[in-house]
Amino acid sequence: MSVSQRLADLGIDLPDVVPPLAAYVPAVVHGDLVYTAGQLPMVAGALLATGKVGDGHALVPAADATALARQCALNALAAAAAASGGVDRLAGVVKVVGFVASAPEFTGQPGVINGASEVLGEIFGDAGRHARSAVGVSVLPLDSPVEVEFVFALA
Amino acid sequence: MSVSQRLADLGIDLPDVVPPLAAYVPAVVHGDLVYTAGQLPMVAGALLATGKVGDGHALVPAADATALARQCALNALAAAAAASGGVDRLAGVVKVVGFVASAPEFTGQPGVINGASEVLGEIFGDAGRHARSAVGVSVLPLDSPVEVEFVFALA
Amino acid sequence: MSVSQRLADLGIDLPDVVPPLAAYVPAVVHGDLVYTAGQLPMVAGALLATGKVGDGHALVPAADATALARQCALNALAAAAAASGGVDRLAGVVKVVGFVASAPEFTGQPGVINGASEVLGEIFGDAGRHARSAVGVSVLPLDSPVEVEFVFALA
Repeated sequence: MSVSQRLADLGIDLPDVVPPLAAYVPAVVHGDLVYTAGQLPMVAGALLATGKVGDGHALVPAADATALARQCALNALAAAAAASGGVDRLAGVVKVVGFVASAPEFTGQPGVINGASEVLGEIFGDAGRHARSAVGVSVLPLDSPVEVEFVFALA
Repeated sequence: MSVSQRLADLGIDLPDVVPPLAAYVPAVVHGDLVYTAGQLPMVAGALLATGKVGDGHALVPAADATALARQCALNALAAAAAASGGVDRLAGVVKVVGFVASAPEFTGQPGVINGASEVLGEIFGDAGRHARSAVGVSVLPLDSPVEVEFVFALA
Repeated sequence: MSVSQRLADLGIDLPDVVPPLAAYVPAVVHGDLVYTAGQLPMVAGALLATGKVGDGHALVPAADATALARQCALNALAAAAAASGGVDRLAGVVKVVGFVASAPEFTGQPGVINGASEVLGEIFGDAGRHARSAVGVSVLPLDSPVEVEFVFALA
């Protein structure tokens, strides 16, 4: 099944490509790989949330952050599709690195970045299985709670 | 000399592959490279230590963290070997990124990640020479003091 | 126009390669890519500045940090040129990851890492357009305000 059919079956509309915040491009094709820029959970030009992830007052709950990471994956898919000639050119996922702006005691970064990994599994099946790092950082651009970068493989 | 012979000469038993904490795989082969997930210093399912690296009460000393980074490298080698058909398929190391959960004043991240780099040099010789980044982060999954990801080259 | 001519036109003298702080190499060629180590803003063996980036007393202003990121890019170019047989072997830039040692409230990491991205654009033109991540971290090696790693493409 093609990626576009799979997206339709899952009821996922690919978002518009998020314009870069600065002097770079959303995704670059080199050889049979597509490298995306670090993706923020933006929809229609605005972050879905801001702040640090953790438990407690004024923090972003982990469950919310997991949904944000899913949005990062969809934004990455849109960027990779635009750079490579369409989403059906993408064959799978090689590598994901997830950065979680974390309260000092928050150690659940893997669960947060699962929001990205799991939607890629739904879309690509076994070809969506990727190597991954998830780390906690002190602060991210625009005070985003998460930033995730991706390497896709071309068909 | 094969990698397996070199490991035997060094008295290094390759550990079992550490199962992923989440929805990803320990290593992915693409082309002639093997990308590993971020490796934590786990042995038999448990972290060897937790906490932040630095000097002072309740911190993980840099020397201890260096040994943890070495364990990350061995875990990565096991993961890459399992993904690629055996440790003797691995020809060398291309890239290492090391994340050190750091007390705010701790700036010795390169020395810590040397624990990974040096054991790869012992195992692969000149082919183990890699490009590397080492950074300090606020917190890592499960409160691990270090997390290191690797790109190996296949023979 | 060759990269060396372009550097001359821009009045940029490529710096000496910064020796690694530890057990790794400044850059590795694999296939048609050159992976650099994380570059610090060193000139003649010393950091140009130390500390965290942000607004306020004892912090490194964002504008200063942007200039530091530019130096990281030039150091990377020198490292990649030395590893690959000369700067004219380099055809473009694929990927940049920028780490900014950030005060907790500082969210302008993209602007800082523009210092690296923009000089690469000046040197390589369209071929310098790269995918990029920029994140804030708590502390960097030697208390450097920025560390940036690069993947260049060979001609």
